[in-house]
Amino acid sequence: MNTRATAVVDVGLGERSYSILVGSGLLGAPSSYRRLAHGTSAVIVTNDTVGTLYAHTLAAALEQVGVRAEIVLVADGEAFKTWETLQTIVDGLVASRADRSSTVFALGGGVVGDLAGFAAACYMRGVAYVQVPTTLLAQVDSSVGGKTGINHPSGKNLIGAFHQPSAVIADVDVLATLPRRELVAGLAEVIKYGAIADDAFLAWIETSLPALLAGDQAALVHAVTRSCQIKAAVVAADERESGPRAVLNFGHTFAHAIETGTGHGTWLHGEAVGCGMAMAADLSVRLGLIEPAHASRITAAIAAAGLPLYAPALGVPRYLELMRMDKKAIAGALRFVVLEGPGRAAIRTVDEATAAATIEAFAGERGPDAAL
Amino acid sequence: MNTRATAVVDVGLGERSYSILVGSGLLGAPSSYRRLAHGTSAVIVTNDTVGTLYAHTLAAALEQVGVRAEIVLVADGEAFKTWETLQTIVDGLVASRADRSSTVFALGGGVVGDLAGFAAACYMRGVAYVQVPTTLLAQVDSSVGGKTGINHPSGKNLIGAFHQPSAVIADVDVLATLPRRELVAGLAEVIKYGAIADDAFLAWIETSLPALLAGDQAALVHAVTRSCQIKAAVVAADERESGPRAVLNFGHTFAHAIETGTGHGTWLHGEAVGCGMAMAADLSVRLGLIEPAHASRITAAIAAAGLPLYAPALGVPRYLELMRMDKKAIAGALRFVVLEGPGRAAIRTVDEATAAATIEAFAGERGPDAAL
Repeated sequence: MNTRATAVVDVGLGERSYSILVGSGLLGAPSSYRRLAHGTSAVIVTNDTVGTLYAHTLAAALEQVGVRAEIVLVADGEAFKTWETLQTIVDGLVASRADRSSTVFALGGGVVGDLAGFAAACYMRGVAYVQVPTTLLAQVDSSVGGKTGINHPSGKNLIGAFHQPSAVIADVDVLATLPRRELVAGLAEVIKYGAIADDAFLAWIETSLPALLAGDQAALVHAVTRSCQIKAAVVAADERESGPRAVLNFGHTFAHAIETGTGHGTWLHGEAVGCGMAMAADLSVRLGLIEPAHASRITAAIAAAGLPLYAPALGVPRYLELMRMDKKAIAGALRFVVLEGPGRAAIRTVDEATAAATIEAFAGERGPDAAL
Repeated sequence: MNTRATAVVDVGLGERSYSILVGSGLLGAPSSYRRLAHGTSAVIVTNDTVGTLYAHTLAAALEQVGVRAEIVLVADGEAFKTWETLQTIVDGLVASRADRSSTVFALGGGVVGDLAGFAAACYMRGVAYVQVPTTLLAQVDSSVGGKTGINHPSGKNLIGAFHQPSAVIADVDVLATLPRRELVAGLAEVIKYGAIADDAFLAWIETSLPALLAGDQAALVHAVTRSCQIKAAVVAADERESGPRAVLNFGHTFAHAIETGTGHGTWLHGEAVGCGMAMAADLSVRLGLIEPAHASRITAAIAAAGLPLYAPALGVPRYLELMRMDKKAIAGALRFVVLEGPGRAAIRTVDEATAAATIEAFAGERGPDAAL
């Protein structure tokens, strides 16, 4: 239960500010939860997989600070981010006699976080919740920003709320039980933060990828901490996503096309983002915004992390069609987050021919010919 | 389409501030909607009853300011404030291709307002909505405050959001088609505002009740305007209902016991509030807070409005049991909003014997013996 290498990231959002605790040994340490009021109640929302591994450790730590916790189990996977699962969680909160002073704990990956966060946003018009992300992707991405929600048959995250957590506990120890493919997928978002906002961090990632892939605690703590700092700074400047926050979607326009074009679930989101970032870097070179050597650095980091560099051969017309449905598209014009230099990103409208050239290079019939 | 006797109430909530337009002839006047951006889309959520009467008038006025409106119908009544109806509305928003720039119009009473407001709060994590309340109760109560939500089998409004409208259009002309029983029920809340916050307004109500009951437009405009001003001032001081806002619940602890004890729907909410206010005024006299003559003024106004003054004989123990479940109760102690003088209210913990004496006086076996 010894906590080592702990870092704190403060997310500055006025009266909705909160702290992210990043470290090793946090999940089972009562000190992680000492801010909770003695005698209040908690409801831990988790799935079978994660719950079996960690729910009782969390509940025991909460009990040591005088907080009684009930556990609500939901099914695992994006397919269950539905009205039905949301109702199951609310029914669980009612059955647990949760009141306005109760705290919801989201113990799991992004799906559990989105569901439990939205349930907390709606229950009694808003109760507190704490994110305990158990995937690298959730630790560096979905636990910062306050986006919660469920899917509708017509669109991902179409129903939801902005509801900031009161705290995030990111314990890197839990990543030891994460399937390697998911660890790798999470690294895509880590690379993203270096690419869009901090070239020194990108350089650190380049040298630290072997340690990260080997599960080195100190390296993981630094990667999660710096990623959260960058996302927190972007979100603090644009909480409701009206402008600058869009740079967090670097690689995501191509990624969403890959995910939708292949059917959701075929590619992991992080895998599609990895490939999408290589494509967006290539696009930035074609637009004359960055040197080919800088794009190659990003592409090499993506490859070294074990992420795919080739996109499925769906054909250029299908890619263009999918990308025009992107939320960033305005009146049918293609818009991308591009790099303007090391650690600098911006949104640009891009002509179809240039976008098509990038698609052809990464998803052409000949397979990938990215300039590695 | 001529607008007369129009008043504007500004609800000051920082960046969530909005205006309530109160008047005659507003619903069908394009000028009521001129702040909406030309070319945006609207979705009118309404029920069969109200929709048949007014939806096309509203849609035609919107069309004149360049806003295309789709109509989504929901079933009428508190029993339909459910997950299912919420999903119906969201499905309707999707089918209407509503996007982040769309505006939801809630055309109806409190049920439609709560449902449509909550759907707007959730859709794409929040789109704008305009309240067009068509009952007196909704005009003076539920269109101010930003409370939206649905019921859960275990509790009313258990699931919801605080989501402020971008405007409220309170057209008193629509009250002409309101059943008299509902008009009377709405007057209970009007009397409440006078009792808790403005003795001069209470005096005006005392002399104006005949005009209000006869549907006099100028009298209704003043009653709605002053009620909204009072509620807006209370809400602005306590948006998330952590303290002072609770005085708006004057009469409501007794009222909720009457509604739950008789089965929801037997008494209209306003009828129960009318009787509950007479009981709370009596309680205030027993606590030595106000003169009997002041309680009699309030009781006389309630009677003159045509509201019931006797409570059902459920027995004192059942009343006490029901009131201990009230949200204001703390650790089983009974808490009531009481009057401390003309136009002044506060929350007090009340001993069981005093509460029992009031219940006995209004709901005893002998029937009502209120000091009229």
